[in-house]
Amino acid sequence: MKNYKILEIKESVFEDNNKQADLLRAEMKKDKTFLLNLMSSPGSGKTTTLVRTIDALKSTFNMGIMEADIDSDVDAKTIDETGVNVIQLHTGGMCHLDADMTRQGLDGLSAKGMDLVILENVGNLVCPAEFDTGATKNVMILSVPEGDDKPLKYPLMFTIVDVVLINKIDMLPYFDFDMNAVRERAEKLNPNVKVIPISARTGEGIAEWSEWLKNEVTKWQSEEN
Amino acid sequence: MKNYKILEIKESVFEDNNKQADLLRAEMKKDKTFLLNLMSSPGSGKTTTLVRTIDALKSTFNMGIMEADIDSDVDAKTIDETGVNVIQLHTGGMCHLDADMTRQGLDGLSAKGMDLVILENVGNLVCPAEFDTGATKNVMILSVPEGDDKPLKYPLMFTIVDVVLINKIDMLPYFDFDMNAVRERAEKLNPNVKVIPISARTGEGIAEWSEWLKNEVTKWQSEEN
Repeated sequence: MKNYKILEIKESVFEDNNKQADLLRAEMKKDKTFLLNLMSSPGSGKTTTLVRTIDALKSTFNMGIMEADIDSDVDAKTIDETGVNVIQLHTGGMCHLDADMTRQGLDGLSAKGMDLVILENVGNLVCPAEFDTGATKNVMILSVPEGDDKPLKYPLMFTIVDVVLINKIDMLPYFDFDMNAVRERAEKLNPNVKVIPISARTGEGIAEWSEWLKNEVTKWQSEEN
Repeated sequence: MKNYKILEIKESVFEDNNKQADLLRAEMKKDKTFLLNLMSSPGSGKTTTLVRTIDALKSTFNMGIMEADIDSDVDAKTIDETGVNVIQLHTGGMCHLDADMTRQGLDGLSAKGMDLVILENVGNLVCPAEFDTGATKNVMILSVPEGDDKPLKYPLMFTIVDVVLINKIDMLPYFDFDMNAVRERAEKLNPNVKVIPISARTGEGIAEWSEWLKNEVTKWQSEEN
């Protein structure tokens, strides 16, 4: 049985996205709802990582998931099986979400009262980095098969995120991927970035990642407005 | 020694990209220069596939390569080692090239008189599909680690290409990737698409791919304007 809806997002009419993003963040802070914006290339394992994250945190937090894609509801279907609230957002061809589009998604999900909402952004290392969604924290996934040169080629994405999850580390023996080089390249762009190697498939590293997220949500909820 | 230049592409001023693309294609036809537009996600193996393609065809054709990226010259450096002419294009943050940007690249490369120019587009499955570059043929790479659901999620890209190269097939034993499902999904969107499984690492499938390209270039050069 399908327990999720598909929402066709309307293009935003606001000129100043940064202002809309700050507004949304302030409202979410008041509601004590933490919004995580998860970004990556197509096929780096966002949805599988999400399923692991849901398993680790769904007994602690009231969670909701927004799956953004150009088309299809493949990901919402997968998330629906975990039992958490999920909505599929269709971006009408757009390769990113901005703050107003994110707000439409939150309304569609009925996110009010939730502790943690995760937005799985469109698979893309360029455009999503350019638009503040209003998220509390921004996280990206780089998977081992994509290669260790990605911080050199997509520097903005690595600059704006709080955490880089290096996924598919169970595949390290089969690829020429230098973990230290990635770490150095990411930290050069973004000295405060946290790099966490994981395998969404085997579960390795998920404890460290979900512990980080749990602490951030708790901190956000307990801080004064 | 560095034998390539880095060109900062200017944003296009033309309103009608399709018209500019048709114009460029007509000019290239007259010059008998075949332009291939190669697209994919970040890290699917565009550059490694290019190196294999160059090795297979450089004795037959006078070739040139345009490497488009947001930043860095990692790829131009790699291609430079093959000995063919190469130029690195920086898109100034833009996630695609349009026809005018492609024209700037061709001028920078001094492509006049070449038989075959390959444009390695920015790593992205969304925006590059929306802009006709003026290419003679469009090809995409989908790599095995990205997953077999990509035609469902990025349908436009699969609709506009002439060939889908399925790369990293040497990794098939380690990933849950259904080749028949991809083929069916791609052909449903695009009944004329040609799907060629390859491994740029081992060289498997490169003969079939370079044979296809060789025939297309020869046909293009021998056809009347």
